[in-house]
Amino acid sequence: MRTQVGIIGAGPAGLLLSHLLHLRGISSVVLERQSRDHVEKRVRAGVLEQGTVDTLTAAAVGDRLRREGLPHQGIELRYDGAGHRIAFEELVPGRSITVYGQQEVVKDLIAARLADGGDLRFEVDDAALHDLGTDRPYVTFGGERLDCDFVAGCDGFHGVSRPSIPAGVLTEYEREYPFAWLGILARVKPSAEELIYARTDRGFALHSMRSPEVSRFYLQVPLGEDIDAWPDERVWAELKTRLETVPGFVLATGEITEKGLTPMRSFVAEPMQYGRLFLAGDSAHIVPPTGAKGLNLAVADVRVLTEALTQWYETGSGELLDGYSQACLRRVWRAQHFSWWMTTLLHTFESQDPYEQRLQLSYLDYVTSSEAAAKTLAENYVGLPFG
Amino acid sequence: MRTQVGIIGAGPAGLLLSHLLHLRGISSVVLERQSRDHVEKRVRAGVLEQGTVDTLTAAAVGDRLRREGLPHQGIELRYDGAGHRIAFEELVPGRSITVYGQQEVVKDLIAARLADGGDLRFEVDDAALHDLGTDRPYVTFGGERLDCDFVAGCDGFHGVSRPSIPAGVLTEYEREYPFAWLGILARVKPSAEELIYARTDRGFALHSMRSPEVSRFYLQVPLGEDIDAWPDERVWAELKTRLETVPGFVLATGEITEKGLTPMRSFVAEPMQYGRLFLAGDSAHIVPPTGAKGLNLAVADVRVLTEALTQWYETGSGELLDGYSQACLRRVWRAQHFSWWMTTLLHTFESQDPYEQRLQLSYLDYVTSSEAAAKTLAENYVGLPFG
Repeated sequence: MRTQVGIIGAGPAGLLLSHLLHLRGISSVVLERQSRDHVEKRVRAGVLEQGTVDTLTAAAVGDRLRREGLPHQGIELRYDGAGHRIAFEELVPGRSITVYGQQEVVKDLIAARLADGGDLRFEVDDAALHDLGTDRPYVTFGGERLDCDFVAGCDGFHGVSRPSIPAGVLTEYEREYPFAWLGILARVKPSAEELIYARTDRGFALHSMRSPEVSRFYLQVPLGEDIDAWPDERVWAELKTRLETVPGFVLATGEITEKGLTPMRSFVAEPMQYGRLFLAGDSAHIVPPTGAKGLNLAVADVRVLTEALTQWYETGSGELLDGYSQACLRRVWRAQHFSWWMTTLLHTFESQDPYEQRLQLSYLDYVTSSEAAAKTLAENYVGLPFG
Repeated sequence: MRTQVGIIGAGPAGLLLSHLLHLRGISSVVLERQSRDHVEKRVRAGVLEQGTVDTLTAAAVGDRLRREGLPHQGIELRYDGAGHRIAFEELVPGRSITVYGQQEVVKDLIAARLADGGDLRFEVDDAALHDLGTDRPYVTFGGERLDCDFVAGCDGFHGVSRPSIPAGVLTEYEREYPFAWLGILARVKPSAEELIYARTDRGFALHSMRSPEVSRFYLQVPLGEDIDAWPDERVWAELKTRLETVPGFVLATGEITEKGLTPMRSFVAEPMQYGRLFLAGDSAHIVPPTGAKGLNLAVADVRVLTEALTQWYETGSGELLDGYSQACLRRVWRAQHFSWWMTTLLHTFESQDPYEQRLQLSYLDYVTSSEAAAKTLAENYVGLPFG
C-alpha cells in the first residue's frame, strides 16, 4: 500500500492535516490506535482561537461549528471577592474565541474525510515507523506495509511517533506543576455566559461550558490526588466555595457525567522533525490547559506543515519543510510561556511565601486595571495571528 | 524645641517632604545622621519617572533638573545578539524618564530648604523616637527634645524609624535575590544615548549614565562576591563581553571613580504607619534597582503624605492620614511586582533549568514584539500616573 503522507493519529491534528492535504490534492492514510467511537467521544479541549475557527471555516469544515459553537467575547478573572472581565471586543476587536468541544471538531473532520473518500483506519494498535531517515519511509501495522513520502506524527504525547526518533536527536524540555486539575462535565446550564478563571486561597477553579446545557468545571487539586476522594457532593461544595465569591453569583449544580484528573505538564521536543517524520501537536509539545492552547497549537502546526508539503509536491522545494520546526517553535514557546503565565497567575503554590502571594495579587490587580496588561492576556488568549 | 512635623532623614523623601510641607505652610525639622557633604555625594538612583519630574518641577525645584537632566524616550533590551528598543514616545506618548542623579535631587532640595530658612540638622547620630502612639510624639537627639504633631520616618531601610514601631505591629514581606549588582561610575562618555538592559548567558549587565561625561554600569555578580576580585580591567572585560553582543557596538572605557556592590532585595512593611509615625520611602519598602523604582516610590509616598498632613492641618480631618498606608501600598506592590518582573526577565538564575531559560527568551521575544507587552514595560518604567 502506498500514499503520499502517512499520518499517525486521528486526533484534531492528524485529521485536519489529512483534510487540508486532500484539499491540495495530496493523498494520505490516517492510522489511529483507538476506535472511531472513542475518539469521537474523547473529552479534551474546548476553546478554539480565532485562527483555529478561521482555519476550519476556510477548509469547509466549520458549518456545525458556526451553528453550535458558542462565540465568547471575553473571560472573567475572579479573585479577592470581585470579578474582572477581560473584554476581547475592546482589547482585540474582531477577534474572539469559540467554545466547541474538541471531540466535535474530530466528528466534523471524520465526517468530511469519509465523505471525500478519505482513508482512515481505526483500532490500529501496532503501527511502527521505519526508515524515517531515508527518502522511503514506511509504516507497518496489522501485517500491512504503508509506503509513503512523509510520515506525520500526530499521535499525541504518548504516541509511537516521537519515540521512533533515534536517541540523541531531540532535545526535550519539561516541567511538571505541583498540582493537577480535577475536571467534571455536568448536565447543567452554565452559571455564567463566559468562562470564569477564579483564584482563591484554596486554589484555582474554572467555570466553563460545552453547550447551553452542559457545563465544564475544573478544580486545582494536589498532585497524586485520589479521584475517589472526590464524590460529587464534595466537588460541588468545593466549586461553590471557590466560585461563589462575588455577590449574587450562585453556582447551578446538576448531574455529573464525567470526572477525571488532568496532570499539569509542559513539554517541548526540538526539533519537531527527524528525516521524513514531522511531529505536529501534542506529539511534539504539551501545555497545561490553563491557557487553552493545546488544540490550537496543533492546528497551527498543521497549517505550517500543509504549506510545506504543498510546496514540496508542487515545486519540489524542501525549503518550507526544512524550516518547519523553526516556524512552529516560536509559536510553541509563546504558548508555553503564556500557559505558564496563566498558570502561575491563577494557582496557589505550596511553595509560595507571603511575599509571592502579594506579588501574585498585585499582578492580578495590574492585569485587570491596565489596558496594556489586559491586552497581553487577551491577544494570547484569542491567539496570536498565524505567521 | 517644637515643630509640626519631625522628619527623620535628609534623603530625597525627607527633604522633599519638608519642602512640600513648607509650600503648604507646615513647619518641619529634618534630622539627618550623615553630613551634608555625604548626602550630597551619595551615589544612588538616577532615573526619574515622569511623575517625579512633574512633582519636582511643580514644587519649583526642577530648574537644574530641566537644564542638566537627560530626558530619555526609550530603553534598549539587548539579548541573543540583538537590541530591541522600547520606544516610550510611541508606547506612552508624552511620558518619559529623566536621567538625573539622586544626589543632584538632594542638592537641589537642600539648597531650596536652606534658601527658605528650613531647619536641617546634619550629623545627628542619636535620634530616638518617643510616644509615637500618643498625640504628643517627640524626638530626642544630642541632648535636645523636638516635640511634634507627627513624625515622618524617611531614614531608609537601616534607619531608626521602622525599628521604633513596637513588635507585632508590622507585617514584613521580604525577598532576597541570589545575586548582587556590581556598580561602577566611570569618567567616559556613554556608549549609547539610552539605557541598555542586557541579558546574557553570563548574567545581566546595564549600561547607564549620569551625565554626558559620566557613565554608570552594573554587572550581575554572585551573592557574596568580593569586590577586590573585580579590578578595573576585569570589570571592563566583563562589561564588554556582556554588552558588545550586537554588531557595531563598542563600549568606551575610562577611569573608574566609584565601585560598589548593591544587594538585590525586596522588602515591604505593612502598614506604613504607627500612631503618629508615618514611614515614607526606603524605611517602609525597598526594591531591587532593576526597574529604577526606589526613589520614585519615595516621591509618591511623600506626595500622599503631604496631602494627608495638609488635610489634617487645614480641616482637622484625619481621613487621608488614616488612609495613607493603603493609598501608598497599591503603588508599592505594583513597583514590587514590576521590579521582580524586570529582574527575573533579565537576570540568569543558577536554579534555572533549560525549560525556564527558553521561557525567559520567549518572554523577551514577546515583550519586544508585542506592542501591548512592550507597553506594560513602558508604562511601568515611566511610572504609572499618581493616583
